[in-house]
Amino acid sequence: MKLATVGSVAFDAIETPFGKTDKIVGGAGTYIALASSFFVKEQSLISVVGEDFPQDVLAELSSKGVDINGVEVKQGEKTFFWSGRYHNDLNTRDTLVTELNVLADFKPVVPVNAQNASFLMLGNLSPDVQLSVIQQMKQRPQLIAMDTMNFWMDIALDSLKETLKHIDVLIINDEEARQLSGVYSLRKAAKIIREMGPSILIIKKGEHGALLFHEQHIFYAPALPLEEVFDPTGAGDTFAGGFMGYLAAAERIDFDNMKRAIIAGSALASFCVEKFGTQRLKEITMADIQARMQEFVSLSTFQL
Amino acid sequence: MKLATVGSVAFDAIETPFGKTDKIVGGAGTYIALASSFFVKEQSLISVVGEDFPQDVLAELSSKGVDINGVEVKQGEKTFFWSGRYHNDLNTRDTLVTELNVLADFKPVVPVNAQNASFLMLGNLSPDVQLSVIQQMKQRPQLIAMDTMNFWMDIALDSLKETLKHIDVLIINDEEARQLSGVYSLRKAAKIIREMGPSILIIKKGEHGALLFHEQHIFYAPALPLEEVFDPTGAGDTFAGGFMGYLAAAERIDFDNMKRAIIAGSALASFCVEKFGTQRLKEITMADIQARMQEFVSLSTFQL
Repeated sequence: MKLATVGSVAFDAIETPFGKTDKIVGGAGTYIALASSFFVKEQSLISVVGEDFPQDVLAELSSKGVDINGVEVKQGEKTFFWSGRYHNDLNTRDTLVTELNVLADFKPVVPVNAQNASFLMLGNLSPDVQLSVIQQMKQRPQLIAMDTMNFWMDIALDSLKETLKHIDVLIINDEEARQLSGVYSLRKAAKIIREMGPSILIIKKGEHGALLFHEQHIFYAPALPLEEVFDPTGAGDTFAGGFMGYLAAAERIDFDNMKRAIIAGSALASFCVEKFGTQRLKEITMADIQARMQEFVSLSTFQL
Repeated sequence: MKLATVGSVAFDAIETPFGKTDKIVGGAGTYIALASSFFVKEQSLISVVGEDFPQDVLAELSSKGVDINGVEVKQGEKTFFWSGRYHNDLNTRDTLVTELNVLADFKPVVPVNAQNASFLMLGNLSPDVQLSVIQQMKQRPQLIAMDTMNFWMDIALDSLKETLKHIDVLIINDEEARQLSGVYSLRKAAKIIREMGPSILIIKKGEHGALLFHEQHIFYAPALPLEEVFDPTGAGDTFAGGFMGYLAAAERIDFDNMKRAIIAGSALASFCVEKFGTQRLKEITMADIQARMQEFVSLSTFQL
């Protein structure tokens, strides 16, 4: 198995200045698997849903090469539900409802055929749960990446620091990097965070692109200036999925490929925000992604 | 004359989390002239100071090829003084004191030898004052660039819109672009603002780099992730000065040279913030600037 991902599969109800949705399918695991499926034809998703979750959504993931044996369906229980309203700038949002449901006592079980995955992506979950997944792997994956959020820094910092010792790539946003490191300068923050464990750090800056830190290298990936961001939900997970999918397909993990992988993730995220939920990710083709990656080239190329 | 610049020459007193200064020399005109002097060996500065302004500072500018005949010294009056305190993130600041002094009724007179300058840089001043400088030029400069700020959008929007009709390059920050256009998306804002007059728009995003819009092209210039920003005062003017100086020296105004000019401006700005006021700009050499411009190349280069 090339890639294994653990992450939520959920219902979201979203309100943006452009409209609102009823319950639609979301969740970090869903976005990561969808995004990486463009590059990786064989992957495993580890998650949990309730009996209210539509079978055809799982079947659709399956048709894209996502092994869903690791997605537990809990009879008599309900799927994780999140509802939020974005402000006019679409950079900030209020959470209206969080119903953990099946996610409350999620104890992921890595299926046997995923225990030898060479790439492991840990979506945003409690750091203890993330660590439990690492510990179920039969051999150390070639690359372990994880996402986390302020919430875990607030309530489970020690566990988070323990899990950080076991991973290679941390993917967080600028605000989270500042909170985790305790310093404002992202360059200093990167040094402090990489001393906690991950040799590779990606700091996402939303409409301002992303920074990649590895060894003595820094890469500044631009973000495509968009006419409109319709719905930012899932953009960060889509970015992570594109990054891991691209690297897993490329196999060689060097700085040049990491840079390409970030452009792939950025291109996918730029599609994701064009419509509600996962809709746009289901419409686009590999040719669309390649064309958009080329836009990043013309956007940022210069010669002295 | 290659380049003429109109802009304030002033005293600043600055407080940052790292320390504070007594009155030091600042002002948009000072930063622009200093930055552009690395590229342009013949330029004119048009400004006004009081009799309290140190002659040796003007002499120093003069030694760098800046013709100071356009800097009026008003006997019996005092130089413009600004004092401010930066917050911990260094992105926001409180103005503590603004004493307009000689700037209150500044009516710039363009010296005869500057009236045929091929490049004209209008530092942040009232749009009427900026327009009066354009009107004094004997022939239409090859390129007219200007800076402005929210203040003029609040109190002199009609004048600002009139001046915008006469220029080629508007250099503002993201917040100003959003206010001037009335829209949040910078891509949409760029379209609206360029319909007001300037065919070229540069949107500065501080630690997030800068965007250049011209015809159908967009260039995303990265910002160097710095260990520490010591004092951001003058960074925007230094950027503008580096941009105009580079272009004036290159003479050819095409998109590739504009991109290089933005990198030059960004490199200079990244030096500017390393120490208080103009101190760092006076220490660096052309070799330092070239080395830093190369850092921007390695920071943002990737190949698909």
